[in-house]
Amino acid sequence: MNFEPPVQRLIDELSRLPGIGRKSAQRLAFHILNVEKADAENLGNAIIEMREQVRLCIRCYNVTAQEQCMICTDVRRDPTVICVVERAQDIAVLERTQEFKGRYHVLGGSISPIEGIGPDQLRMRELVARLDIEGVREVIAATNPTVEGDTTALYLSRLLKPLDVVVTRLASGLPVGGDLDYADEITLGRALAGRKQI
Amino acid sequence: MNFEPPVQRLIDELSRLPGIGRKSAQRLAFHILNVEKADAENLGNAIIEMREQVRLCIRCYNVTAQEQCMICTDVRRDPTVICVVERAQDIAVLERTQEFKGRYHVLGGSISPIEGIGPDQLRMRELVARLDIEGVREVIAATNPTVEGDTTALYLSRLLKPLDVVVTRLASGLPVGGDLDYADEITLGRALAGRKQI
Repeated sequence: MNFEPPVQRLIDELSRLPGIGRKSAQRLAFHILNVEKADAENLGNAIIEMREQVRLCIRCYNVTAQEQCMICTDVRRDPTVICVVERAQDIAVLERTQEFKGRYHVLGGSISPIEGIGPDQLRMRELVARLDIEGVREVIAATNPTVEGDTTALYLSRLLKPLDVVVTRLASGLPVGGDLDYADEITLGRALAGRKQI
Repeated sequence: MNFEPPVQRLIDELSRLPGIGRKSAQRLAFHILNVEKADAENLGNAIIEMREQVRLCIRCYNVTAQEQCMICTDVRRDPTVICVVERAQDIAVLERTQEFKGRYHVLGGSISPIEGIGPDQLRMRELVARLDIEGVREVIAATNPTVEGDTTALYLSRLLKPLDVVVTRLASGLPVGGDLDYADEITLGRALAGRKQI
């Protein structure tokens, strides 16, 4: 059975979102039917307005509603260290650690020959352009600990070394609170190779 | 860290939906950032417009964009049998069986003393009013097979019996394709009590 047209239309739209199947879409649609009208409008407008207002920071390609993002315009941040991430959402994860006080650069992905993504499809040139202007001394390659992320980090280090910039990589090893029993052999291997004196 | 205001606002709104935590809300928000602008607008408008256009069918209280729902206005449906459900979304599940050709009545919940819901909070009077007008001969209590649903079905049968209407209940038993091993004892008990000669 199809639902009444406006309900069916919303279910169809919701089903297109990642991780939301038809059943969840139905449940969400009927939930929205039962909330206050103002709440439904808030949600709908939040979607439309976010898509309208948000663009990419002209400096680091983070998402922002201004010309530059909150981090790039924050004068308390250290301009000499840039943390390079694959996607804008990775910034939030790193910020939550409260360990990093520098700025970011969003590459827009990682090198993946299988998907046909080479360095030219990423914002490498834009990164190089920033180094001189901002007086960058260290670039942290915070790409994912995957084959693609590692390849991208390696590419970065080769690209930037001649420019007198230190390129570092996030440490790989056992997750805090984890159990040795459950660690895969590659992670454990890296934890061993990266062991430190205590 | 907070995201830029429009993004954060959408994440907050999405997190209020059932079954969507902060992590899923973030993932959805960033997904919406990356889709075509028109797609984001479609989704946002689908939410707003559904909430604006949809109301309750004046006859059966199903959701509809018209005065009466598609089922109530369908002259091929048998008006003498009414299937009583707790919520409007239950209608879709029953329709999918393609076994039922009558009409529906949405109670708006089930009798639950714990939650303070008695028969007066449900659309019982509205159901009784329909019986005469539509010439109803059978009412199928398709409330959930829970304590509340069973109580509601029992209440319905006592309410309608004096009015010369047959009240029936959906059969309880083993789900088709299920495994005896995994059936709980109450379901299995009902399946035994409701056994049929083959």
